[in-house]
Amino acid sequence: MRTRRLRLFRHPAQVVVAGFGLAVAVGTLLLMLPVARTGTDWTDPVTALFTSTSAVCVTGLVVVDTGTYWSTFGEVVILALIQVGGLGTMTLASLLGLAISRRLGLRARVTAAAETKAVGLGDVRGVVLGVARTSLVIEAAVAVVLGLRFWAAYDVSPGRAAYLGVFHSVSAFNNAGFALWSDSLVRFATDPWICLPIAASVIVGGIGFPVILELRKRLRTPRAWSMHTKMTLWATGVLLVLGTVLITANEWRNPATLGQLDTPGRLLAGFFQAVMPRTAGFNSVDTGAMYEGSLLVTVVLMFIGGGSAGTAGGIKVTTFVLLFFVIWAEVRGERDVQAFERRIGERVVRQALTVALLSVGLVMAATVVLVEITRMSTHLVLFEVVSAFATVGLSTGITADVGTAGHLVLVLLMFVGRLGPITLVSALALRERQRLYHHPEGRPLIG
Amino acid sequence: MRTRRLRLFRHPAQVVVAGFGLAVAVGTLLLMLPVARTGTDWTDPVTALFTSTSAVCVTGLVVVDTGTYWSTFGEVVILALIQVGGLGTMTLASLLGLAISRRLGLRARVTAAAETKAVGLGDVRGVVLGVARTSLVIEAAVAVVLGLRFWAAYDVSPGRAAYLGVFHSVSAFNNAGFALWSDSLVRFATDPWICLPIAASVIVGGIGFPVILELRKRLRTPRAWSMHTKMTLWATGVLLVLGTVLITANEWRNPATLGQLDTPGRLLAGFFQAVMPRTAGFNSVDTGAMYEGSLLVTVVLMFIGGGSAGTAGGIKVTTFVLLFFVIWAEVRGERDVQAFERRIGERVVRQALTVALLSVGLVMAATVVLVEITRMSTHLVLFEVVSAFATVGLSTGITADVGTAGHLVLVLLMFVGRLGPITLVSALALRERQRLYHHPEGRPLIG
Ligand SMILES: [K+]
Ligand SMILES: [K+]
Repeated sequence: MRTRRLRLFRHPAQVVVAGFGLAVAVGTLLLMLPVARTGTDWTDPVTALFTSTSAVCVTGLVVVDTGTYWSTFGEVVILALIQVGGLGTMTLASLLGLAISRRLGLRARVTAAAETKAVGLGDVRGVVLGVARTSLVIEAAVAVVLGLRFWAAYDVSPGRAAYLGVFHSVSAFNNAGFALWSDSLVRFATDPWICLPIAASVIVGGIGFPVILELRKRLRTPRAWSMHTKMTLWATGVLLVLGTVLITANEWRNPATLGQLDTPGRLLAGFFQAVMPRTAGFNSVDTGAMYEGSLLVTVVLMFIGGGSAGTAGGIKVTTFVLLFFVIWAEVRGERDVQAFERRIGERVVRQALTVALLSVGLVMAATVVLVEITRMSTHLVLFEVVSAFATVGLSTGITADVGTAGHLVLVLLMFVGRLGPITLVSALALRERQRLYHHPEGRPLIG
Repeated sequence: MRTRRLRLFRHPAQVVVAGFGLAVAVGTLLLMLPVARTGTDWTDPVTALFTSTSAVCVTGLVVVDTGTYWSTFGEVVILALIQVGGLGTMTLASLLGLAISRRLGLRARVTAAAETKAVGLGDVRGVVLGVARTSLVIEAAVAVVLGLRFWAAYDVSPGRAAYLGVFHSVSAFNNAGFALWSDSLVRFATDPWICLPIAASVIVGGIGFPVILELRKRLRTPRAWSMHTKMTLWATGVLLVLGTVLITANEWRNPATLGQLDTPGRLLAGFFQAVMPRTAGFNSVDTGAMYEGSLLVTVVLMFIGGGSAGTAGGIKVTTFVLLFFVIWAEVRGERDVQAFERRIGERVVRQALTVALLSVGLVMAATVVLVEITRMSTHLVLFEVVSAFATVGLSTGITADVGTAGHLVLVLLMFVGRLGPITLVSALALRERQRLYHHPEGRPLIG
């Protein structure tokens, strides 16, 4: 047991990639079976691979309509893949955080121990159980609310309402964004009883397990929170407010999106559209009908993503905020980069930079390739590429039309986007060599 | 004299901004005069401001056709503004590099002195004279070649040929990209006697004065070149080859661009299109007819730009390459960032990061704003914004159609793009505080 754990810690990237690859493969085989779809045919391998990858990577991009193409068995397979992918992501990212802390602990015991305790990553068993318990409790609570609302207001049978509640609750908490209606959640755009629980679940799922754990432990002593928690919460708040204002204001009079709703509906839908890019992928207005300015704002929000060691994708809010603090320090002529009363080490800055710039490079390259393959317009392709890379699942509607080569590019992007930042940062951090610490150091999780 | 120089060094940003602002203002007034244009009307202030800014910032974006709208007097005003802007940029950027070296010299005498001598920034008078002499010699040489070719092969009078030679030589060396034909240089796409001298002049002008100076001094001892020169030359070579291959291959069969030329013509035009994004702005094929993938590649090349302390814009190749070395060091688990047998200091990394990310942020924000103002398609607007910011001057053809608000946005972008990276880096570097140097340190110019 001791040996196996050490091996996991030494080559975490391979283990994680192999695990997710296996889940995708099993999902692909199951989804190909005739029993998984309506009708009696086999599903072609690319469609099954795309859907399985999208579910395991909790992305939510689809090439066939989830609610009509798949049978109930197929939907349950997708749901299981989402749950496996979501739990896997949270657990592995948290464990890698633990591994990083342990490695560091040999040399920077004080710093690492403080941060480790703060985020509660004390031991492997605690992490695994904590993630599972937290996920199930929140999923169950949201499923109940959604189920009651579907049953009470939308004229469906109690059994169907319960099923819809569970499916969309799991899809929301794991930031998967799979919905059983072809228009995602557009029909519920003005229903706060559907939109708000889903938005809350998305935010909590995407904020990351270490933050959830710390909030549960010391909700009333914000001063004692770790730098990681403070940074994540601040960034999440700012991005949500900014995103809501920009998208709501810009789409206010767009007759194809917010313009057709009443004022409270516009506010609700505007907020919902600002929550979903981090990185849930439901939509309650027609994404393809939004102005290009709103799509660009959404692209930026999607790229930034959510919190580390949660179900969100993207480069993560801590990575983004950390680079912001570097720039701030540089512009002010400060020698040390400081944030939330902690110094940020040079090495962490370099890791953030590496994750952000490699991500930008990958997105740019994939956009050029996909523009060349499809000859579609750049803004549609860029949106799709960032949505896949950041495992968001929003689309302007081109997903089904990019062809087999395009689908394989998106599959690769989803897989790399899901695992790249996590494993890259842990691989980088675990090779960190001896250095002298001049000051106590804050160590936010990155990627 | 001593006092004035010190004041320049203490508040370089204000001096530079005021100087360029004054040049733009004088140019605007001159271009508004009826004598500056064909016909007898006054030119409206926005058109004059746009053209003046474009000339002083050596950008080359135009809202009216240079060759037909302006009188010869107007063209000469534009030429003078280009020359003032180009000389000003090279001189000021070199002097700021000198100022940075002097400040550092107080504390890190060895490093700074080595680099200072290497790039030959010994004293102010030497810099000013050196820049002027270098510019005039190269401009004169290229003007002679171009003039002879225009006279010999294009059936124009000797006087007109000389005028065309001088205008396009000055425009090329200063990376201004103003041409006297409405299709830029499309009619010369297959003429190596026009395209190659212009390309060479653009590359030399855009590579930066310190590199030119060092090459002149020690062309035969590449091992002794400063890190800045090595980095700039390597990056320039790689980007030119990569750009040529990508654009030529992608446009090879495009019937609206390279497809209509013979094989040597395609190679020449492909190379020319790869040189011009750094950041000259001539074009010998129709930019608006290029595939979107080629436009995106061009956007990346434009954003990177040319060498520091030359007439090129963009974030500069050294900034880009430095970040590449940071990522490389991080991925390999190295403690120090090393390039060309020198260690790169943490502070320089932060400066490069600051320039690159603030530039990305500005381009993103301007793109969103301009998309909202014009409701034009994202890829056209992004291309225009990067072209303005990096003072390139290439356009898909929308420049005249973005409206007054759009024109003012572009004017602002050209001005900020021309002066932002230069003054930002010097402002950052000059406030640098005391630190301990553990190793001798390489200091490339950034921005
Ligand atoms: K998602
Ligand atoms: K230019």
